[in-house]
Amino acid sequence: MTTLRDLGENGLIQRFRALLPDDAPADLLTGIGDDCAVLRLGGEVLLVSCDASLENIHFQRRCMPGEGIGWKAAASAISDIAAMGGEARFLLVTIAAPSDTETAFLDDLFRGISGAAAHCGAVIAGGDTTRSPEGVVIDIMALGVAPGGRYMLRGGARPGDVLAVTGWPGLSAAGLLALQAGVEAPPLTEKHLHPLPRLAEGQWLARRESVHAMIDLSDGLLRDAGHIAEAAGIGADIDPDALPVSPAFREYGRLIGVDPRALVLSGGEEYELIIAVDGAAWAGLKKDFGAEFELELTAAGRFTELRGIRVAGEIPDETGFDHFRFG
Amino acid sequence: MTTLRDLGENGLIQRFRALLPDDAPADLLTGIGDDCAVLRLGGEVLLVSCDASLENIHFQRRCMPGEGIGWKAAASAISDIAAMGGEARFLLVTIAAPSDTETAFLDDLFRGISGAAAHCGAVIAGGDTTRSPEGVVIDIMALGVAPGGRYMLRGGARPGDVLAVTGWPGLSAAGLLALQAGVEAPPLTEKHLHPLPRLAEGQWLARRESVHAMIDLSDGLLRDAGHIAEAAGIGADIDPDALPVSPAFREYGRLIGVDPRALVLSGGEEYELIIAVDGAAWAGLKKDFGAEFELELTAAGRFTELRGIRVAGEIPDETGFDHFRFG
Repeated sequence: MTTLRDLGENGLIQRFRALLPDDAPADLLTGIGDDCAVLRLGGEVLLVSCDASLENIHFQRRCMPGEGIGWKAAASAISDIAAMGGEARFLLVTIAAPSDTETAFLDDLFRGISGAAAHCGAVIAGGDTTRSPEGVVIDIMALGVAPGGRYMLRGGARPGDVLAVTGWPGLSAAGLLALQAGVEAPPLTEKHLHPLPRLAEGQWLARRESVHAMIDLSDGLLRDAGHIAEAAGIGADIDPDALPVSPAFREYGRLIGVDPRALVLSGGEEYELIIAVDGAAWAGLKKDFGAEFELELTAAGRFTELRGIRVAGEIPDETGFDHFRFG
Repeated sequence: MTTLRDLGENGLIQRFRALLPDDAPADLLTGIGDDCAVLRLGGEVLLVSCDASLENIHFQRRCMPGEGIGWKAAASAISDIAAMGGEARFLLVTIAAPSDTETAFLDDLFRGISGAAAHCGAVIAGGDTTRSPEGVVIDIMALGVAPGGRYMLRGGARPGDVLAVTGWPGLSAAGLLALQAGVEAPPLTEKHLHPLPRLAEGQWLARRESVHAMIDLSDGLLRDAGHIAEAAGIGADIDPDALPVSPAFREYGRLIGVDPRALVLSGGEEYELIIAVDGAAWAGLKKDFGAEFELELTAAGRFTELRGIRVAGEIPDETGFDHFRFG
């Protein structure tokens, strides 16, 4: 008997895709398989995505305040819009919770969702609420637009492209470890509780001819770089000495007892952006990005003809996180 | 300590509304509180809704096949588009399931969702899959358009309007009882497993000047008539002798041992439409509807200045179903 555990999340998505009719309508520009679905409706190109967060899978109430759980759930859905270069416009919010859930917790949760929405220029338009038999379930649908009809897919990377990433990956994962251990480490926990979808940066990057592909960093750098490479039928080699290791790790890394570079490679829920950039244009892009945004943009490797993701030429053990296989 | 049980579903929605910023943008035409949110994007008026179905709250796997669970979950979301007079276009599908869930069940579930989508002219554009700690969770987001920018809200009913309903309410609820009891009753179980959102009927009704308000029958006739009345600040009186009692009840009602009229009044998940119609125009509307559709349209009562929902002038005991309060 085959179960979800055997298939994994990607296997299940492939299976569902195979069950869909072949004749997708012309107004579905991109269906299952990228960060968002891309639709043409009226005069606009719409980007839509949904993202579920379940208690004891994606978050634990004992080490995370309701406000942070809500913010993170909304940021995660909105980040998919950022990854296509879109503007976030509306959210639909589904919340299911056991009957004995304190309303104070639900208020906090909703305030977090509402806060992230406001920060990102999106409006909560509706949703659904219901009882759950066990555990809190949050599902956020984000609806955005592609400015001028332009958007960036994950599949355009070419061998020789620079693999670059925004910000300081690994901080969110480190923040979770700090929360679980009860360690005070504000720059880490803040990144975990209030990740900021890179909307302005994504829109800016999506307008550059030299940027060939983009994805948001939700499953870990290794794994998300793998998604870009796989979509293009190529590979990538990551330079461990080039990884962006946040200065905050120097101060707090020892407190939580982890190797920062391992977190940079595997930490998920960072909601930074990973891009594939034409090698010849990289230096100019980095300079222009630095002039526009107060955010790091770091070359962490190169895309290669050879398939698979390698670190300094070797296939690493840990290739990210799959919700069905792990735990 | 206040919990969800004390608030109820409507109380929670009111609470969330109060937490939202006051300054809704001009392109949010209708936010929380109707069947769909109504948005203006590009040249179109969009209708969006989401609807969650949880195992052991909304369905039980032991008495329902995966295909029916999926169909029903999709139909429920699409029905919200029908209730505004819209065309269904796209679905996003979130599915969470325990790791040990059989993939054969998930295939069936997805086939049901896909079947309902195809029947309604909608396309599955994307979604999310993840592991759940316990029980299957389905959340469907339906995205539709209002033809010519015209849509029908639930709040326009006036005292003296006829309260009318399409089809045979109660059949779906009876079908569930038949499934639970293991009784063979195809016209009942089919209505429960494969409800048909009334899209064409909703579009037709939304174009008629004499139709003042519309809602889909998801929580039961009494309760959904109450939603229309409450939105207009009025009431309604239902005539128990005028209720549409399906001929199928004559054949199967005794097998499942229930009073058909009780099911007609309280049965949810029927996905028929309830409308408020100008009294002077009712006879003409009914005639025109009958010429257009092979579906009953029955006057079951009148809207009244006096608030509250009454049956033959009396406040009934059972006013519908609230997911947080019951069970």
